[in-house]
Amino acid sequence: MTIDRRSLMGAAAIGAGLLSTAQAQTAAPAAALPPAPATPPPKVTQILARYITGARFEDLPANVRKEGTRTFLNWMGVAVGGSHHETVDNAVAAMSPFSGKPEANLMGRAEKLDILNAALVNGISSHVFDYDDTHLKTIIHPAGPVASAILALSQHRPVSGREFLHALVLGVETECRIGNAVYPSHYDMGWHITGSCGVFGGAAAAGKILGLNEQQMAWALGLAATQPVGLKIHFGTMTKSFHAGRAAQNGLTAALLAAQNYTADVTALEGKDGWGQALSRSVKWTEVTEGLGSRYEAALNTYKPFACGIVSHPGIDAAIQLRSENKLTADQIDSVTLHANPLVLSLMGKTEPQIGLEGKFSIYHCVAVGLIYGAAGEKQFQDAIVKDPAVVALRHKITVNTDAAVPTQKSDLTIKLKNGKVLTKHIENAVGSLEKPLSDAALEAKFSDLADGVLPKAKAQKLMQLCWDVEQAADAGAIAAAASA
Amino acid sequence: MTIDRRSLMGAAAIGAGLLSTAQAQTAAPAAALPPAPATPPPKVTQILARYITGARFEDLPANVRKEGTRTFLNWMGVAVGGSHHETVDNAVAAMSPFSGKPEANLMGRAEKLDILNAALVNGISSHVFDYDDTHLKTIIHPAGPVASAILALSQHRPVSGREFLHALVLGVETECRIGNAVYPSHYDMGWHITGSCGVFGGAAAAGKILGLNEQQMAWALGLAATQPVGLKIHFGTMTKSFHAGRAAQNGLTAALLAAQNYTADVTALEGKDGWGQALSRSVKWTEVTEGLGSRYEAALNTYKPFACGIVSHPGIDAAIQLRSENKLTADQIDSVTLHANPLVLSLMGKTEPQIGLEGKFSIYHCVAVGLIYGAAGEKQFQDAIVKDPAVVALRHKITVNTDAAVPTQKSDLTIKLKNGKVLTKHIENAVGSLEKPLSDAALEAKFSDLADGVLPKAKAQKLMQLCWDVEQAADAGAIAAAASA
Repeated sequence: MTIDRRSLMGAAAIGAGLLSTAQAQTAAPAAALPPAPATPPPKVTQILARYITGARFEDLPANVRKEGTRTFLNWMGVAVGGSHHETVDNAVAAMSPFSGKPEANLMGRAEKLDILNAALVNGISSHVFDYDDTHLKTIIHPAGPVASAILALSQHRPVSGREFLHALVLGVETECRIGNAVYPSHYDMGWHITGSCGVFGGAAAAGKILGLNEQQMAWALGLAATQPVGLKIHFGTMTKSFHAGRAAQNGLTAALLAAQNYTADVTALEGKDGWGQALSRSVKWTEVTEGLGSRYEAALNTYKPFACGIVSHPGIDAAIQLRSENKLTADQIDSVTLHANPLVLSLMGKTEPQIGLEGKFSIYHCVAVGLIYGAAGEKQFQDAIVKDPAVVALRHKITVNTDAAVPTQKSDLTIKLKNGKVLTKHIENAVGSLEKPLSDAALEAKFSDLADGVLPKAKAQKLMQLCWDVEQAADAGAIAAAASA
Repeated sequence: MTIDRRSLMGAAAIGAGLLSTAQAQTAAPAAALPPAPATPPPKVTQILARYITGARFEDLPANVRKEGTRTFLNWMGVAVGGSHHETVDNAVAAMSPFSGKPEANLMGRAEKLDILNAALVNGISSHVFDYDDTHLKTIIHPAGPVASAILALSQHRPVSGREFLHALVLGVETECRIGNAVYPSHYDMGWHITGSCGVFGGAAAAGKILGLNEQQMAWALGLAATQPVGLKIHFGTMTKSFHAGRAAQNGLTAALLAAQNYTADVTALEGKDGWGQALSRSVKWTEVTEGLGSRYEAALNTYKPFACGIVSHPGIDAAIQLRSENKLTADQIDSVTLHANPLVLSLMGKTEPQIGLEGKFSIYHCVAVGLIYGAAGEKQFQDAIVKDPAVVALRHKITVNTDAAVPTQKSDLTIKLKNGKVLTKHIENAVGSLEKPLSDAALEAKFSDLADGVLPKAKAQKLMQLCWDVEQAADAGAIAAAASA
């Protein structure tokens, strides 16, 4: 059965006298059409489909493969770490009664679900701490919508580590390039870009693993375009992390449908009444199409060293360095002064946080735990730590001076000791930034910290090694199995 | 665990220097905020949640209950009728391997799937012929996203016919009111309003059946808001009907999550960075909030008598009336002239259709089958009918004169017979319009025509009666079981 591009519904609408003139012109004779734009948009959807289906693992530069592996390791850590959050418990309770064949593991948990529900839950789990990876140019958290989809899929059909890593990189590349094309307009409109662009990443990666042909891949991208997820208004609720999980699930659904020749428009990104038109006020499609296969956004992923907003990271970095260099203990400290951008206070100015999540919005708490623990991982934002008298006492000794001339990635920290000595530290680029990326060792420490209390130490250690070795793995699905609790 | 409204991601974004000033101001001190708008939007999400949870079946006016029943009957007919379309086959092939417990029937088919997948497939099935119901003010096809969700849910837990009918009406009311608030801007942006508003209908109806409290219902609406479905670019592909099905599935998912206390922002419709801001350029929220419980959009549903665009309906109506009044046969006819609005030709001007779906875009074919068969149901758009020499010969005798002064809902048809006699028919409002609604008998004929070839006649007859009697049914789920093939 072939299908005509024009729609009965369109006819119905116009028949009912409900459409605007501009809409009626869609199907009107050529003479009535407005002049075509000078440069029609490139065939973005098909160009992407051709690139994704044609890409070969052998052509990936070594640094891209390495960053893809780091992306996977970091994703696994946060997915395991977040796996027992109330948000995840509620999602599992809601979806389990309707789950199909339990083929796919939930990271850090005992349950198995069908691959679509596992993609949802693992995506939620990996985003719930807001401690995942960041493509800084778009603020997309790239791994959640992609790794969650294809790791589950790897438990349904055999996928080698190379295939898995390649699909992961292509998925990240796809979502970040589309994000680049619409940022910041798309984000300003209210979209949570991790979900609304992430769905393309999930579809591209799953489609690559399913071996879709170019036509099917274009359909998959079209099916992804028609089911974006995520409004920013939900930040601060459980629905925020739903976005990452649902994007993974929707992307996987899109690829599975396309594999069965479920058709979609193959200009869904760039065409009239398509994704770009509906979801952004301005679009620069060349961000998607130029340099495919030579310039890799997937190589620009970053990983949070601290489980709180990036604006506090220079201050925490300074605190940890001074502590380490001077073997500082809290009882030596008389006063602390942070010189930083005003956003530090407007975003993170809570002076008396009472619970963990409030601690994440307190620069005072962040610097205090940096000085006391030499860390600001998820553990340092537990309720008990926020209420710890020693932490509270040190928070009260901290002053923040703001200065619009200080860029957000910089800070100066000054500590006056009780013995009169003064220590200072200038941070030019905080650890975790593109300029000063998290080292492999730091990624490992983050992973171990997150897995602690969820998986036995030896199991966590083994899982970490499996992630590092993903490129050599015969069976990517085995890594998922190794992440079960 | 309580959750702070402000987000780490927001902090991260601003820390990276990526947000606009307007966004940064979200969390800035009050002094830096722009002046508040004169009239803040009403608390639409909560007002809706309160209305839906508090509504009582006893308070529904009789005409609303009756229209709800007609809506259900019409939905069942198109869902059964479309159930063996290639689109549905492909969706079933893609999703079946991952389906959970087979609790819910697919209308007109033998398979059972879990309720979420059944909601998807039945929604696709009910929309694939573009022959379903229409809320003319918004062009929403209301039943698909709502009935598909709650009929499946009724096979998971006991639901009385009254509960079912009430939830159906409330779901239709919710999606159409939200549609009224954003039409036409939302539609102009590119959204397929049946999917992008329909998800609220599915969530509201499923939430009512699940007995959500007001807080949970607001979460369900928030979860619906964050997963709109449907871009108009997909009209003419299988993805168009995916929108109705996925809206049902997403709405049901939203309600199931909310029932497990999965939180969402409770101002998701009207708030900053919410649905209205992201998905429409202008919003009139009073369309949602005013007259709740007294003015019913659900009473304004209409049903297509002919399986093609509404713009052709006055011409078909005239043809069928002249045939019936004069016992016309094609061999008596010398020439036919239709006087109609120019949109009839610009939308439906195909003179030589070759396949069924092209026939739907040919006013010549539509009028010809009206004259020959006295009908223009799905059967009259089969490939064989489009190629039938008798139909082709009559098509060639038809002329269309267009006249911008003729409104789209009107037409004049003139038939010159070989014996010299001239017959004319003026249509002021075509059958199926709000002014001349489809009679119950016509709805029954449509149902029977759609079910023919899918269900045995006696079974179809019984199913139709079950739909008429839904209000008295002890178990709505039994109606779904009766629709299996």
